[in-house]
Amino acid sequence: MQEKYLGIDIGGTKVMLALVSSDGLTLKRDRIETRAEEGPRKVVERIVESIKKTVGEVEIAGVGLGVPGPIDFSRGVVTLAPNLGWKNVAIVDLFSEKLDLPIYLENDALVAAWGEKTLGAGKGFENFIYMTISTGIGGGLILDGKLYRGAFGAGGEIGHMIIDPAGPTCGCGNQGCLEALASGKALARMGREALEQGRWPEGPSPEGITGSTITNWAKAGDQPSIEIIDRQARFLGLGLTNLTHILDPQAFVLGGGVMTAADLLLPRIKEAMEDYLMPGYAERLQVLPAKLGDIGGALGAAMVARDFGSKK
Amino acid sequence: MQEKYLGIDIGGTKVMLALVSSDGLTLKRDRIETRAEEGPRKVVERIVESIKKTVGEVEIAGVGLGVPGPIDFSRGVVTLAPNLGWKNVAIVDLFSEKLDLPIYLENDALVAAWGEKTLGAGKGFENFIYMTISTGIGGGLILDGKLYRGAFGAGGEIGHMIIDPAGPTCGCGNQGCLEALASGKALARMGREALEQGRWPEGPSPEGITGSTITNWAKAGDQPSIEIIDRQARFLGLGLTNLTHILDPQAFVLGGGVMTAADLLLPRIKEAMEDYLMPGYAERLQVLPAKLGDIGGALGAAMVARDFGSKK
Repeated sequence: MQEKYLGIDIGGTKVMLALVSSDGLTLKRDRIETRAEEGPRKVVERIVESIKKTVGEVEIAGVGLGVPGPIDFSRGVVTLAPNLGWKNVAIVDLFSEKLDLPIYLENDALVAAWGEKTLGAGKGFENFIYMTISTGIGGGLILDGKLYRGAFGAGGEIGHMIIDPAGPTCGCGNQGCLEALASGKALARMGREALEQGRWPEGPSPEGITGSTITNWAKAGDQPSIEIIDRQARFLGLGLTNLTHILDPQAFVLGGGVMTAADLLLPRIKEAMEDYLMPGYAERLQVLPAKLGDIGGALGAAMVARDFGSKK
Repeated sequence: MQEKYLGIDIGGTKVMLALVSSDGLTLKRDRIETRAEEGPRKVVERIVESIKKTVGEVEIAGVGLGVPGPIDFSRGVVTLAPNLGWKNVAIVDLFSEKLDLPIYLENDALVAAWGEKTLGAGKGFENFIYMTISTGIGGGLILDGKLYRGAFGAGGEIGHMIIDPAGPTCGCGNQGCLEALASGKALARMGREALEQGRWPEGPSPEGITGSTITNWAKAGDQPSIEIIDRQARFLGLGLTNLTHILDPQAFVLGGGVMTAADLLLPRIKEAMEDYLMPGYAERLQVLPAKLGDIGGALGAAMVARDFGSKK
């Protein structure tokens, strides 16, 4: 009989769960609200309830847990997760109090990357970079077939690569981070700027413009929105070029909410990369949309438990 | 008896050779001119002469060969080395025609990095980035204790990270690469600009200003030159910050000709990084000068042969 693994992906607004067999088949899934404001202990309690509901009487070989980094892996502690309001949360201990199962902790971008590697668009690649483009921009590096965490568990912060020191201010305080120029937040900002410039004489109020407003309008053929996507793609192409020159991967796998506009974005990103890349790189590099959607992190967490966890 | 390894580092102007025992003791060294214009076959012939002179009757367990990348490792071919004028040079075959010894080919920045890891400033680090700052800027990544080549042997091109799309044009054709902003060439350009701005009323002709002119003047206390070093250090700090957020290393080890001004550069680089880095990174990160000087590549090549090569 195949062993079964449980994957949990804790995000700012939702927690995704997946029960996966060792050959990668999804047996069950669940989704609950995070409600981070209730504090980590309550959040874990509700996740454990969902686990019990999802797992039932099934015997579990291991649990993979994806959490926003940076992480202190030696102590099983989430050092800092602004979108959860967590600081030094001993997440493994909190789970172990309620759950008698081996827990394997991993960075959320890395579990999503491992999901794509084992079950999605990253299959067959030993070196690829998973990038999630939503409100922010995050990354998970798969290097030489392994999860790359960085020396202190804080690698993969590719959204905070500064690519224009005169650019707009980022949430991190620097100017011109890739995230400040090409995330969902950046789309919203460029949208508000376009509105102020009178690009939509009968447009909505500035507050009404979000990242998905722009992607939706662009998909519907709205010219000012397409021009904003053009600019976003240019910055993404520059960021991926930098990562290519540094890490020379086989592929990029791009996920996150902004990728609902993949048909518009991908050809433009590739065009920018062809302009920026030094000779030799572009021909062998693939830029692909992620395949697993928002359950990808939970699936990947289960596969991380399968591939790197060990039974108690 | 300890085994002995030969390291060869082929650069644009000189070839360095080192005979090293397996415990890292340098037994002999040599240096010859590259004279790349004579073509790869002649260059290899003269290196083999130097090898015979250096090695004598000593039995060699392996040869490590550092060459400018990118490299096709499966075929032992240097794909493109502009500073040697080489394109698709079957360097391993050329050596094997003349030399009956196992040859281990590696990227020149990676052998230098491995030299620092085994015998220099990188000792004890499993994750560090070696950066050479001379006419250009190159890099060798040591990740999770191993040489990181990239999927196609072309990783580590950290000098071509674009950090200012409106910046000066780089040799690669892009604008605002780190190399265009912070290399020896960039020092010379900033020097010429300062001269045109009348910063040195009794200064030399613009042609007389090189990178080392500026570093030497700065070390002597010349204010306009120190201001140029300030700007260079700011760009380097930004570049190292990007690499830190992406790869979260334990250390940077900085080598190359420009590091003769390390006393001026290092504190300024660290200051810039403290400004740019997100919380948590700066305290645990070390920025160190390389220890081995221009023999480092040859020493590293010998240690690469020891650690990764295998006897025929």
